[in-house]
Amino acid sequence: MTHHEPTHRWIVTPQTARFTEPLVLQSGAVLNGYELVYETYGRLNADRTNAVLICHALSGNHHVAGYHSEQEKRPGWWDNMIGPGKPIDTERFFVIGVNNLGGCHGSTGPSSPNPDTGKPYGADFPLVTVEDWVTAQARLAEHLGVERFAAVVGGSLGGMQALQWSIQYPDWLDHCLVIAAAPKLTAQNIAFNDVARQAILTDPDFNGGHYYGGPGPKRGLRLARMLGHITYLSDDVMGSKFGRALRSGSYQFGFDVEFEIESYLRYQGDKFAESFDANTYLLMTKALDYFDPAQDLEGGLAEALRPAQANFLVISFTTDWRFSPQRSREIVEALLSNKRNVSYAEITHGHGHDAFLMVDPYYHGVVRAYMEKIKL
Amino acid sequence: MTHHEPTHRWIVTPQTARFTEPLVLQSGAVLNGYELVYETYGRLNADRTNAVLICHALSGNHHVAGYHSEQEKRPGWWDNMIGPGKPIDTERFFVIGVNNLGGCHGSTGPSSPNPDTGKPYGADFPLVTVEDWVTAQARLAEHLGVERFAAVVGGSLGGMQALQWSIQYPDWLDHCLVIAAAPKLTAQNIAFNDVARQAILTDPDFNGGHYYGGPGPKRGLRLARMLGHITYLSDDVMGSKFGRALRSGSYQFGFDVEFEIESYLRYQGDKFAESFDANTYLLMTKALDYFDPAQDLEGGLAEALRPAQANFLVISFTTDWRFSPQRSREIVEALLSNKRNVSYAEITHGHGHDAFLMVDPYYHGVVRAYMEKIKL
Repeated sequence: MTHHEPTHRWIVTPQTARFTEPLVLQSGAVLNGYELVYETYGRLNADRTNAVLICHALSGNHHVAGYHSEQEKRPGWWDNMIGPGKPIDTERFFVIGVNNLGGCHGSTGPSSPNPDTGKPYGADFPLVTVEDWVTAQARLAEHLGVERFAAVVGGSLGGMQALQWSIQYPDWLDHCLVIAAAPKLTAQNIAFNDVARQAILTDPDFNGGHYYGGPGPKRGLRLARMLGHITYLSDDVMGSKFGRALRSGSYQFGFDVEFEIESYLRYQGDKFAESFDANTYLLMTKALDYFDPAQDLEGGLAEALRPAQANFLVISFTTDWRFSPQRSREIVEALLSNKRNVSYAEITHGHGHDAFLMVDPYYHGVVRAYMEKIKL
Repeated sequence: MTHHEPTHRWIVTPQTARFTEPLVLQSGAVLNGYELVYETYGRLNADRTNAVLICHALSGNHHVAGYHSEQEKRPGWWDNMIGPGKPIDTERFFVIGVNNLGGCHGSTGPSSPNPDTGKPYGADFPLVTVEDWVTAQARLAEHLGVERFAAVVGGSLGGMQALQWSIQYPDWLDHCLVIAAAPKLTAQNIAFNDVARQAILTDPDFNGGHYYGGPGPKRGLRLARMLGHITYLSDDVMGSKFGRALRSGSYQFGFDVEFEIESYLRYQGDKFAESFDANTYLLMTKALDYFDPAQDLEGGLAEALRPAQANFLVISFTTDWRFSPQRSREIVEALLSNKRNVSYAEITHGHGHDAFLMVDPYYHGVVRAYMEKIKL
């Protein structure tokens, strides 16, 4: 492995693409115009064969790598995976990160002005699905002059988008990397999402979704994020990182923070409630719940994936209990039954679902080796 | 097996015991007087050797079997286990159910009048621990003329109380039945409890715990219960009972209830929020978090259980992910290393943690066989 560490910060600048052709959503609602904010890394080659699309997960966005400024505290959310000399090597690939429709980091979403009223959409922003995101991402590709992706890549909800790409635009991608994902949510997955949504929807400051200019449902969003974090980590890593450790060494017999795990969760909840939009959180969890390409198909997932032509790399993590390896194997088995090319790696990792965001030599080695073999 | 089905309803009447000797709690706080509400089933024999104490779990109470009236819709919470001819046979045993201190079903708790102010304790009710409950239960035993229990029995948090009995009053019990329990909570267990507590504590109607006479933190308590229910059921049973079934057959693209699992959880949450006291919920979850008899002991759980003299029946359920079989095995191994008599049954059951409340022929058969062998 050759690493080309930049000697100074790699500064990226978000771009905005404006679309004026109406987008008919899966719900039947229509967006007459919308913007998508995106970032690119590396250069599109002359043959336009080296583009890689990165699809983000629930709380992610377009800022996948590098820094926005010399002052920014942390790089993009997948900076350990994407960059010069990294597993998804931007010296070879032209990488695109995009904030999905309905997001809260620049793309048109609930906090954007509703052209009909001039006020933020709030609850009037239509629900969007994984299919809608893929459609919008395809328009962005056209906007960027990309007619075909070397690969579409995503983890968790991002992996579902990559999978949907292979079904919806089978001719547009050569490779599909589906990481820590599932072909659909289980009842338990939906149940966790519903508790998170109810926390937001029943927050008195939610105000029916029209809370911009007010305090907003920060209490509810904080609870949703705390709950989410429990499902992102394995029981084991919670045990080894926090265990039953007490902040002050002894029981306080009150309701202030006592255990280190409480401190961690509340910090994560507080931070998220200040930086994320609750309406977007609601939309994202609904898109998760709705995703089920095999819905109503007698032939199940194999039938749903029949159109797919891409080559696949499917990756799961042993201690992920949100989307366990078994869920990835369902995807692998459906693809194999369709005689597609599939590589599958089940990574032994202690961290649970969040492992897909972490540095792990074996995991990164698998992605690097796969990406290196892609012919441009 | 002989079943003696009563030809008409078995009516039980709760009793109240008043204690005036001050109770010094583990926190150092003192309750100068308190009441415990309890029920008894069957008759104490002349030698007073047939008493069985049932310890309740998080949302349980003293009403373990039978009906309070001809009109009552549902019997006590463990009516399938306890009664004439049932696994814990009230024709042979004198069974006691008690609502724990801090409860909200008649025993002194946060909604009881604080003698210092004449108003409900609210947040001024002291935190109570499993040790405190056992102390209070021992006083109730004395009050009832019971000097020794044939068995102390409990599931989940109730199992922790049974275990604590064996440590705290080793001479007072011949047998200890610890069902679907754990020797202490993991970080993940505490994390779920903390999210539940934060839902209540941050509800604007919580009012610092002094909410009696007002609406009270029903939103928060509802969320806490919804979350709890996810952990009481296995992923499998949620899948087989609810799966991805939709109430109306198709996506509605809104935030009203759509999936059957959502309907179930919200119903459970609503029902609980109307009938349970949030301050009690807070106390009970703290008692769970604090329970750790091996805390600060170099010899761990084996050292903690060294005083125990009882014979043990430990039972776990294969799909219980709240307190998995591994947690029960920790108890078994500690007892075996102390050369105690232990029977252990790992019941194959699909329902998860809540299985301990359900009818299962093998599970009930194990309890029945164990209870039948107890010499009086």
